[in-house]
Amino acid sequence: MRGLVYGGPGTRSWTEIPDPAIQDPRDVIIQVDAVTICGTDLHILGGDVPEVEPGRVLGHEAVGTVVETGSGVGGLATGDRVLASCISACGICRYCREGAYGQCLGGGGWILGHLVDGVQSEFARIPFADLSTYRLPDRVSNESAVLLADILPTSYEVGVLNGRVRPGDTVVIVGAGPIGLAAVVTARLYSPAHIIVIDKATSRLQAAKMFGADTTVLAGLDEPLETVRSLTGGLGADVVIEAVGTPQTFELCTTLVRPGGRVANVGVHGKPATLHLEDLWIRNVTITTGLVDTYSTPKLLDMLVAGQLDLGHMVTHRFGFEEFMTAYDVFADPTHSGALKVLVHR
Amino acid sequence: MRGLVYGGPGTRSWTEIPDPAIQDPRDVIIQVDAVTICGTDLHILGGDVPEVEPGRVLGHEAVGTVVETGSGVGGLATGDRVLASCISACGICRYCREGAYGQCLGGGGWILGHLVDGVQSEFARIPFADLSTYRLPDRVSNESAVLLADILPTSYEVGVLNGRVRPGDTVVIVGAGPIGLAAVVTARLYSPAHIIVIDKATSRLQAAKMFGADTTVLAGLDEPLETVRSLTGGLGADVVIEAVGTPQTFELCTTLVRPGGRVANVGVHGKPATLHLEDLWIRNVTITTGLVDTYSTPKLLDMLVAGQLDLGHMVTHRFGFEEFMTAYDVFADPTHSGALKVLVHR
Repeated sequence: MRGLVYGGPGTRSWTEIPDPAIQDPRDVIIQVDAVTICGTDLHILGGDVPEVEPGRVLGHEAVGTVVETGSGVGGLATGDRVLASCISACGICRYCREGAYGQCLGGGGWILGHLVDGVQSEFARIPFADLSTYRLPDRVSNESAVLLADILPTSYEVGVLNGRVRPGDTVVIVGAGPIGLAAVVTARLYSPAHIIVIDKATSRLQAAKMFGADTTVLAGLDEPLETVRSLTGGLGADVVIEAVGTPQTFELCTTLVRPGGRVANVGVHGKPATLHLEDLWIRNVTITTGLVDTYSTPKLLDMLVAGQLDLGHMVTHRFGFEEFMTAYDVFADPTHSGALKVLVHR
Repeated sequence: MRGLVYGGPGTRSWTEIPDPAIQDPRDVIIQVDAVTICGTDLHILGGDVPEVEPGRVLGHEAVGTVVETGSGVGGLATGDRVLASCISACGICRYCREGAYGQCLGGGGWILGHLVDGVQSEFARIPFADLSTYRLPDRVSNESAVLLADILPTSYEVGVLNGRVRPGDTVVIVGAGPIGLAAVVTARLYSPAHIIVIDKATSRLQAAKMFGADTTVLAGLDEPLETVRSLTGGLGADVVIEAVGTPQTFELCTTLVRPGGRVANVGVHGKPATLHLEDLWIRNVTITTGLVDTYSTPKLLDMLVAGQLDLGHMVTHRFGFEEFMTAYDVFADPTHSGALKVLVHR
């Protein structure tokens, strides 16, 4: 089969690799029907995630069909259509028992396309399959479901829930990539007063408005602090969600938050940031970081079925498997391509 | 009267100053019966709190007797023995209405010895007196009560409650000054499995054991990370409380916390710290900062009366008012003096 293989920082190829095989009784093998590319994959290619070794098949967001099951798999059968989540879970360790699957100590967590081969390939091995996949209702399309592999639960759990968005809040989202846009969609579930989105690409700010932001700020042109203060009686935002992953954007977040407010970091970072404790020590600020646990995925799936999540415009480009390299090029250059999520499918 | 006056970084004097007078109907004037010195006062003298102007009377922790009341004061009368809290509260603004008195927008918050003259003087003006003082039961001594002006509510609210200490947790407290020791006392209320205290002074580590720490680490000699890991199955601490206020100690806290754990900053900082987001983004860490709100003071006073808080050894040195300069010298050099809290009284 073929797969998208990481060759070290800056290097990737769509190339012939061995078919995956069951390695553990809890594995399944899926035929990958639809898969997408994550900002995290770009962070890996940028060298921000040094644990990823050259030779690794990337990708952690897919919908597929089970073609083989290990002897220890209880809840899945050949032919099942499943969401392969970015988080795998042993289900047994201390963290899994607390629902903190992202921090699994038993060999799970974020492993796909990170510590084991991922799903940007024609077939893929899914470890701990019972707890790492979700059987999909017929009514949910591959294109919608694949958004629940990472960006929806990540923006919701690590952004909106960690940030404790509440009715009437002013929420600032720094970064209008897919994660930031999914944060707009999921923040709206809590009826905030304002959702202010900051990005450097006009096209992404337009998308933010379409998904429900009421105010947008073009980074480098508009003055974010003034905008936020003018909407909050000078106080600052109740919640600021970092959805980029650079020191500059993180530090911006800590200047936009009001006393008593929350900064929820969602971005993948490769460098340290400066924390201005000389200003922040007195301001009752809460800063959270996090990898998604995906405890919300079943409920998000219910909401998708019920029509509570409008994700219709999130996928902007579609490609066949043989166009995987082009899909990356398009996704990595959103300013020119206008790409949000790109879908690669059979 | 005489008072302890800040003269700019590094400079203080015990000197003749005008008697305080009612400036607002909500003020009272107290005769200061007992007052103490805070690590924050040392931070001010070190230049870490640049809002404090030369000429300011320092101090924000006192017990006194009301000698004059403004016409708008409802709940206090001449002769009342009161705790003068480090936090004043207008009671009217948005933050006060939410119980976030430390962030008062109406002219309160931490103002004593900061933005207005403080209580290290023979008499003092207490603004917003109804909400900034607590009438003291006869059974509570001045020496115990004064510890509830700042260190007990600060360590409890900003350390233990923000850090969400829970039964069975491993709690690390970095810094065994009065705030760190008060954090030991208040963390114990939640029955943690371990309280590990780190300091560079052996005498303070002995005090930490006396107040209830089970493990101590001598900074610079022992290896904190190894100690914490050996007690937590390699995971790290559930809660780390920063009670020093330097970039180094803050950064140490972020290395000692387990995935999913909390770092509660209590220290007063004058410089930025480095936040290693390249490690922390994936670890589900919560970092909080805060100035105390003192919403817990009435309950802490109840607990003091009920004998739930053993503060008997917190005051190590006692001085008369004319010895205020010496009291500062002793407090500022705990390695030699063995000082924890120093009391200055009539």
